[in-house]
Amino acid sequence: MFRQLGVIGTGLMGGSFALALKRAGLVQRVIGYSKSPSTTERAKKLGVIDDAAESALLAVSGSDIVLIAVPVAATEATFKAIRHLVEPGCLFMDVGSTKRDVVDAARRVLKERVVNFVPAHPIAGKESGGVQHADATLYQGRQVILTPLSSTDPALVQKAADVWSAIGCQVMKMSPDDHDAAFAAVSHLPHLLAFAYFSAIARQPAGADYLTLAGPGFRDFTRIAASDPAVWRDILMANREEVLKQSLRFRHTLDAIEHVMRSGNGEALEDLIRQSADARANWQMSATNKTPGSR
Amino acid sequence: MFRQLGVIGTGLMGGSFALALKRAGLVQRVIGYSKSPSTTERAKKLGVIDDAAESALLAVSGSDIVLIAVPVAATEATFKAIRHLVEPGCLFMDVGSTKRDVVDAARRVLKERVVNFVPAHPIAGKESGGVQHADATLYQGRQVILTPLSSTDPALVQKAADVWSAIGCQVMKMSPDDHDAAFAAVSHLPHLLAFAYFSAIARQPAGADYLTLAGPGFRDFTRIAASDPAVWRDILMANREEVLKQSLRFRHTLDAIEHVMRSGNGEALEDLIRQSADARANWQMSATNKTPGSR
Repeated sequence: MFRQLGVIGTGLMGGSFALALKRAGLVQRVIGYSKSPSTTERAKKLGVIDDAAESALLAVSGSDIVLIAVPVAATEATFKAIRHLVEPGCLFMDVGSTKRDVVDAARRVLKERVVNFVPAHPIAGKESGGVQHADATLYQGRQVILTPLSSTDPALVQKAADVWSAIGCQVMKMSPDDHDAAFAAVSHLPHLLAFAYFSAIARQPAGADYLTLAGPGFRDFTRIAASDPAVWRDILMANREEVLKQSLRFRHTLDAIEHVMRSGNGEALEDLIRQSADARANWQMSATNKTPGSR
Repeated sequence: MFRQLGVIGTGLMGGSFALALKRAGLVQRVIGYSKSPSTTERAKKLGVIDDAAESALLAVSGSDIVLIAVPVAATEATFKAIRHLVEPGCLFMDVGSTKRDVVDAARRVLKERVVNFVPAHPIAGKESGGVQHADATLYQGRQVILTPLSSTDPALVQKAADVWSAIGCQVMKMSPDDHDAAFAAVSHLPHLLAFAYFSAIARQPAGADYLTLAGPGFRDFTRIAASDPAVWRDILMANREEVLKQSLRFRHTLDAIEHVMRSGNGEALEDLIRQSADARANWQMSATNKTPGSR
């Protein structure tokens, strides 16, 4: 049981975490801060937080658990704003989709308080953000990846795992680098490709006509191209090295397939397609990733 | 009302066409031929065809409407097998996903009987093929693209449009080149990219681990990577020039996005993503393409 949860960024992710902890009886009081005062006010009106703090620092003061749920690009500034009031023993986490950048910023900024920081990436979300969509069950049945630093206090890592488990998550631990490499492959690159593909079709002279002929295959393939531009700017920028590495692998495979198309070797083309088709047919999504809206 | 429908290739597409024409009362008798005698037999047992022909030629003999529903790569050989018995006035169609190659083969092989040929591409299908899945409603509510040659008899083009309309299709006419360019963009390229992407992920050393972390975005993006390898070998090979052109456009857009990622220009990256995200958010699939299973 925690005395006080401080939530910095009381949107969908932060608000849902607050509601989930309350519902599980894990926290006595929630104090929240958002950059926009109207968001903080709404969070209070909706009962997502008990009190509004006037600054990130004041949301941390007196809290024994803190969740930073701000856009990835704002994480470092948030660390700077709060580092002086993170108390010894306070469990302090984020929810960002990239981890190498967060861990680097934590080392740079948090100094000795870095022992309190347990970087977290819950694989959860919704098409529509904002505190009005906050939901006590958002994290239920999802995966959460913890990427502790070598200096993180192991007791706090355990505490973090217990909290996420208590609100229904399956907890995995990975290094920040492994995390970023994995998500570059299965999440960030598909977004990049979908953005590039949709743009390439829509912007060509006959694009509008072509789009009237597109069917369900196209619809599913491009669904993620409608994702939030600011969120994906941050993710692709923060993890660009891994994403570019994965893109290069993809380009090599695409080159190989196009090479056999050009050479007219139908048998080799069918072999390459079959490798992919068989592997995809045998793939099944982890049960914990199945809830709609997670990435 | 037709006297006799000859179906060459009594699988899902051909079988469904036969059932649809019967149900609409458009045909008195259906005769079918498949390369595999067991398929023809099954089609007869299931009541999809009334009689089994011993050759493609015999399925055409005496028919006033003929549908070729064989794999695209087998179309030319089928033309050769039947050209001597296509009667004047007989409406003669295919159902292939590419049209330039079919039209070229028709010109080469059918000679003066090319006037009877109305190339057709119904945007319909199912995950599972075979005559056992043939369905009188397969074409209902779908688009069908007709790509008549300049020499095609206009009366037969009208007859073709009437038949497809009568079984519930929305009929569009396009040139073979426009058709192939459009479907390269909205169907063939996405398949190529999905095949390449899935292979690139699955075949890397940590690929199997990465795949356990993939969620709904990945699932939808890669769904078409499980498509039939022989069908897609034929389509990508037949339409490779247009597909490679579209791939080049895609690569240029991907290059542009990766360039701003590398240069660290977050604002430019967000702009590029926003163009795609806004266009995708505003896109809606044509009502006629919405039935699951069509491409």
